[in-house]
Parts: sequence; structure tokens; C-alpha cells
Amino acid sequence: MTGKVVALSGGVGGAKLALGLARLVAPEDLLIVANTGDDFEHLGLSISPDIDTLTYVLSGLDDTGRGWGRRDESWNFMASLKEVGGETWFLLGDRDLALHVERTRRLRQGESLAAVTDAITRQLGIGPAVIPMSDDPVRTKLRTDQGWLDFQHYFVRLHCEPRVEEIVFEGAADAAPHPALMEALAEPNLRAIVICPSNPLISIEPILAVPGIRAAIARAAAPVVAVSPIVAGQALKGPTAKMLAELGTKPSAEAVFQRYADLLDAYLVEDGEELSSAESRARALPAATIMRSLDDRVALARRVLDAADSGTARDFASLRRARPA
Amino acid sequence: MTGKVVALSGGVGGAKLALGLARLVAPEDLLIVANTGDDFEHLGLSISPDIDTLTYVLSGLDDTGRGWGRRDESWNFMASLKEVGGETWFLLGDRDLALHVERTRRLRQGESLAAVTDAITRQLGIGPAVIPMSDDPVRTKLRTDQGWLDFQHYFVRLHCEPRVEEIVFEGAADAAPHPALMEALAEPNLRAIVICPSNPLISIEPILAVPGIRAAIARAAAPVVAVSPIVAGQALKGPTAKMLAELGTKPSAEAVFQRYADLLDAYLVEDGEELSSAESRARALPAATIMRSLDDRVALARRVLDAADSGTARDFASLRRARPA
Repeated sequence: MTGKVVALSGGVGGAKLALGLARLVAPEDLLIVANTGDDFEHLGLSISPDIDTLTYVLSGLDDTGRGWGRRDESWNFMASLKEVGGETWFLLGDRDLALHVERTRRLRQGESLAAVTDAITRQLGIGPAVIPMSDDPVRTKLRTDQGWLDFQHYFVRLHCEPRVEEIVFEGAADAAPHPALMEALAEPNLRAIVICPSNPLISIEPILAVPGIRAAIARAAAPVVAVSPIVAGQALKGPTAKMLAELGTKPSAEAVFQRYADLLDAYLVEDGEELSSAESRARALPAATIMRSLDDRVALARRVLDAADSGTARDFASLRRARPA
Repeated sequence: MTGKVVALSGGVGGAKLALGLARLVAPEDLLIVANTGDDFEHLGLSISPDIDTLTYVLSGLDDTGRGWGRRDESWNFMASLKEVGGETWFLLGDRDLALHVERTRRLRQGESLAAVTDAITRQLGIGPAVIPMSDDPVRTKLRTDQGWLDFQHYFVRLHCEPRVEEIVFEGAADAAPHPALMEALAEPNLRAIVICPSNPLISIEPILAVPGIRAAIARAAAPVVAVSPIVAGQALKGPTAKMLAELGTKPSAEAVFQRYADLLDAYLVEDGEELSSAESRARALPAATIMRSLDDRVALARRVLDAADSGTARDFASLRRARPA
């Protein structure tokens, strides 16, 4: 089948599936939408961690061993920043810095985040379009037992140690969705909307919090296929399980499903994973969701597309569209 | 003798003599005043080349082989900046970047250039005070056969190739001199004012162009001692000779003397250098001005201080102060 594929992605896990999709879908048919709730200003630089991860993974410049940042990285900037008394809790590699400096320079000159992201990803030879969910600032903030924290302070500086009590997406209510996303979601021949195996609470829900996006997905013609980031009660990476538990939900593939139960037409879970609701069971498809190699990524992407193309998912999509908003 | 020493400095040559002075003068008695006419914004960073050079030389972090920038430097940022399509004509090493990023961050938070410079130089263990001539922006611009050029575009991007027709110090007329400089110049027990062997046209004259500084030097109690940056008609480094020639003056130690003839009480020139005016000859002292080693720097600094402490220089200083402004 052909037709456009929209993928909603956070960082590492999402980027792996996005790379798999990029190997199977024609570049002009793939639209990768990055969460920008993690974005922040640090040392005067505009840093967009999920866009950066997508950029490095899709261009093949990622460090596959470390799991984040650029390959062939060096850390002389950080060492010297420490010498001059700068803040060093957020690691910025010498090569990685180039992306932040160039983005910040262009933003200050008045370019939009979308325009900068497009220019840099094209420059690095990335075929599919990578877009921020919005050009307007949306900032994930967490109420914790240590008070309100900006996302990167919680995530990096405090190593996700504070207990999370509430998550808000500051600015989301006033943010406009990227027009290319809204256009794609409205296309009658859209093939699939993919919710990548990213943290639902802090990677996918900031995207869905931008006014218009959630409703446009609910109305979309194409099946919505999600991949669970939880295997055996654990997140493959990051604080998803810990955060779900602190917010009062037992971490599970089912718990993730329930975050978007109204949207999902197919749900890929790790082989052997158990689901507890009739809705999730009806939509569930077993898959190998742990992506260690490029082959794993392509195989999972194929499974996602097959699920979207299946009659079952298309039937569920019709039911979804028929529900009152 | 004791008493405060004020040194006016540009980049490399000036920093060498400043380092020599720092070995001889108690830290609390040495005030090093940096030219900021070369400062510029590049890639969104506030870069102060002469402050940077002084910082690296005085902290021992300078690359003595290359003659500029930081030692143990790496260039991965530049390589990656090229990949993402950034501007690469101005080389910024990975370690050097830390200084620019930290300065820019602090300036954006509202700190003055003087406060940032003080914090960073103290952090790096530099004893003497290093101050910008002014906290207000002064920008050297050159009218050339290729039109008006910002200094770094002339100096770095175009390798000093354009023919210089005029030099202006934009913003100088509205700039306030650093108060510590004005206080020091007014001190009755000031020991010496040293004009380092920097390019008169683009390193020393921007300092003198800040309202009040030139007049305060003319009135100062201490002898003013300059070191010629010209030997045998050539500059030891940089475009001094080329610029003097293009502006219609034969490059020589005499030509440099004439730029500040009204201020100088002693003038150190390379052994064997010939001077053509009675005024310069009367004030001239032969010296080894080519500073290859640390010993050379200390020896020249000692010669400068001896000249300042001499009866001849003190007599010339009295004559200078007696002249009508």
C-alpha cells in the first residue's frame, strides 16, 4: 500500500521506529512529528532534545553505543566550561554543540523552529520531513515532591529521582499545531498514524495537548497504530514505568493503551505481554518491540504498517470516526 | 619601586608583555586594560578576542605554538558545524567555545562585560585585574577598497587583504571608560602607564578613543611607556605595517611613536632601530622587544618598569602634564 504515514515521536525509542519507517516508506510519504515539550534554553542555546535525537538517528550520526547524542563525540567543551565556572549538569558534546549553536543562531534571526529543523535535516541528507509539533513553545513541567521542575532539571539534573505528582504542558493551550501535520491528518488517503514507543506522559501527550491535534487524529481516515514502550512492567528506556506508578497507575502495556484508548485502532505489544481490557485485547498484535539492530527497527516498522493496512485496524478506524467527538 | 601599573593591551603581542608584567608586579597593583574594538557577535556568541587572548595567556592556557587560542584544542565543533551548514570562516575550537558560551550566557543575564571578564579570569586563577576599556560596545570598522567592513570580516574572513582607507571606532563617542581605569589614571602614586606592543591603529587607538581616557593619560602622574610593535619596518605579528602603509605612513617605530607623541614619556624600540624625530629620540630606549620565551617577556617587562622608574621618564612626564590640554 501507499499513502502518507504520520509518526508521532519522542526521543530514543521513537527515533528507532522512525528510522525503520524511513527505510520502508517513500521520503515524501513520511512525516515525523517531534515532541518539543522537552525543549529548553540552556547556556543561552535553544536545545530540542527529541528533534536532535531524530536528526542524529535518521542521518546515521547517532551514537548507537551510548544511546544518545552524536557518534565520534568529544567532550573538550564541557571540560573547559567547568574550568571557567559554567554549568555542567547537562552534557553537550563538541559535535552536538554545532547543532544547538546553528539552531539558536537561526531562531534569533527570526526563522521558525520548523524552518530551522527542515533546513538542518535536509542538509544532513534526511529524506522524510521532520517537524516540531508546533513552532510555539510548549514546556513540560512537573510538580514533584521537590516542587515544580522544568523537564530537563527533573530528567537530567535530578536523574528522574523526584516523585512526580502532576505533569503540565506549559504553553500548549496557546500553541498552534504545525500546519503540515494538520494537513496530513485531514488527507483522505492517509495510510497510517503511528504513535511510536515513546513515553506517553512526556513524549506523546505533549503532542496531543496542542489544540486540534488530538481531535484531528480522532477524525482521521487512517488507522492509528501505537507501539507499547512497556515490556513486562518496565520501560525499555527512561522513567515511563516510574512515572506511571507515581501517578497511581500500575506500569503496563495496558496502562499505556488507556492513555489513548479513544484513539487507537491497533496496538503492538511485546510477544507474550498480557492486556486486561476487552478494547486493548481486540486491537492488540504481538510484535518484537525491542529494537537492538537496524533489522529490528525495519521489522517492527513493517509490522506497524501491516497492522495499519489490515482490515481489522481499518474497521476499528471506521468505528472510531463514527463515535461522537 | 611600587605603585600601580596600568597596561593597555590588544591581543597577542600585548598579552605577552602583560604576562611579563604579571610576573613582576603584585597582582593588586596591575590593571590590564583590553581593547574591545575587535569584539563581535558570531553564531549568536559574544566574542571578545583581545580579552580571550589575555585570559588564555595570563592563565597559561594559551597555545604557544599556534600563537592564538587555547592549548590542547580540538575542532570537532567546527567539523560538525560545517555538516549542518553553518558559517565556518571564524575558527572556534571546542575548548575555546566554552569561554564564549559562558560569557554570552552571563551577558544575556544582564551582567556587564567587566563583571563577566572579572569572574572568568578570577576563576582561572589570574591574579591581576583584566578589564575591558568600556562596558559599552565599541566596534572597529574599516573603510576599504571593498567597502565598509566589520573588523573580524576584514581581519579573519578576508585575511587583511582589502586595502584600508579609513578606520572608525563605532560607538566610542558614547562609551564610558571603565571606572577602575579612570581611578587608576588619577592616582597620584601611579607607577607606570604601559602601552603594550600592540597594533596602534586597531588595538590601542580604540582604547584612546573612549572619551576621557586619552585626556586622563595626558594628565596622569606616572610616566607613559610604550613598546614599539614595529621592527625593521615590519610588524612582529598582524597587519600593522600594511595598514600604516595603506593609510599613507611609512611603517616604522617612528610612525607608531607619532600616533601617541603627545602622551609618551619613554619609548622602547628594538635595539638598532632608528628614529627620525628629536622627540622620539629623546624618549627612546633600546630593548629586546621580540618575546619568544617567558624569560623574554619578563625581561622586556623589567625594561619597561625600569624606564618608567627612571628620572628621564619622570621628567618627561612632568613636562607632559605641564602642557596645556
